[in-house]
Amino acid sequence: MSQTLPPYAIARQSKRALYDEPTIHAILDAGLVAHVGFTAQDRPMVMPMAYGRDGNTLFIHGASTTRIIKNIDEGFPVCITVTHVDGIVVARSAFHHSMNYRCAVIHGQARHITDPDEHDHALKIITEHLLPGRWNEVRPMLTKERKATGVLAVSMNAVSSKIRAAPPVDDAEDYALPIWAGVIPVTTALGRPLDDNRLAENTPLPASLEAARRKFA
Amino acid sequence: MSQTLPPYAIARQSKRALYDEPTIHAILDAGLVAHVGFTAQDRPMVMPMAYGRDGNTLFIHGASTTRIIKNIDEGFPVCITVTHVDGIVVARSAFHHSMNYRCAVIHGQARHITDPDEHDHALKIITEHLLPGRWNEVRPMLTKERKATGVLAVSMNAVSSKIRAAPPVDDAEDYALPIWAGVIPVTTALGRPLDDNRLAENTPLPASLEAARRKFA
Repeated sequence: MSQTLPPYAIARQSKRALYDEPTIHAILDAGLVAHVGFTAQDRPMVMPMAYGRDGNTLFIHGASTTRIIKNIDEGFPVCITVTHVDGIVVARSAFHHSMNYRCAVIHGQARHITDPDEHDHALKIITEHLLPGRWNEVRPMLTKERKATGVLAVSMNAVSSKIRAAPPVDDAEDYALPIWAGVIPVTTALGRPLDDNRLAENTPLPASLEAARRKFA
Repeated sequence: MSQTLPPYAIARQSKRALYDEPTIHAILDAGLVAHVGFTAQDRPMVMPMAYGRDGNTLFIHGASTTRIIKNIDEGFPVCITVTHVDGIVVARSAFHHSMNYRCAVIHGQARHITDPDEHDHALKIITEHLLPGRWNEVRPMLTKERKATGVLAVSMNAVSSKIRAAPPVDDAEDYALPIWAGVIPVTTALGRPLDDNRLAENTPLPASLEAARRKFA
């Protein structure tokens, strides 16, 4: 992975910033949704999108008619941010309240995927990001579906992550105060799968459900 | 609230788009973190940030030395997106896989808050977004802390929300296939508060913890 960090990507709170590949990949792989930023008509836009990672490439997709898919030029810069909120950090002063979190910020250029094999591969990666093994469980993709789906590949040109995982850090003189401080954990979990009520009779539960449960446990 | 919608804010999937104020406020009020997009050095940037809402104004804050706080000009355009992931929608074809989610997208201009009373008010709103009632439980703010904290007010000029809350929608002919489909619910919850291990003796649990538990239940 290129880890060239332009000046603006260097975080102020450098003790929280990490640039190593395994840390960043782990944050990306554990995410359910990415927030994708781009500039449209000279204004910033942030959209939640499904995504998938293959090595140091992220794939995002959308209907061929959507703005981000339709209007981008090759080399269009995007910022893809994946955040996990792990806790509310409650301090003895308002100033030291914080969050425990893990966040990966990816800057890269978006490229339209036109090669049919790469297009299918990217859609498989996105589908299996949430549901490992799902691609081979479903009805195969149709030509009209491929045409209706635009896929962008974003090379991870500049990456960073920030992690805070700690109790509150209060001013020395505040520790004696009778003010509660600590951390409220925040957890995100998958629930028990709910059958679609038009399920064909005797349809078994697929392996991808259990794989998703393990992945996002 | 101004609901002027520039062309780019009109969602393609218009059946999912909602512009009414109570819906948007509810999505914002239930969020733990916002993804804030802005343009820095001609490139998009997306950062997770704490926030709070007061009427049709959002407040965000950061150390006075951070890029978004320090470098913005008055009227700087920002996009603030708050997303809740509610479920993974598992369909009979890869094409119809989706997510159930609630998302609010706010476009506005950022304004530096310089008035001391408004500054304190905004910090109270941000603190109490996560912990209702916390402001009066903590040690009062110090002058040096006020100076170290930059606060931006973002007027909600153009707003939209998108909600998907439904089972998969498959092609008519696919319902007969023996392929499992349904929804895997996704839930985010606050856990039991963990005491800081330097808590002063006999420190009671504050009311804001229970208020947060109720708010984000």
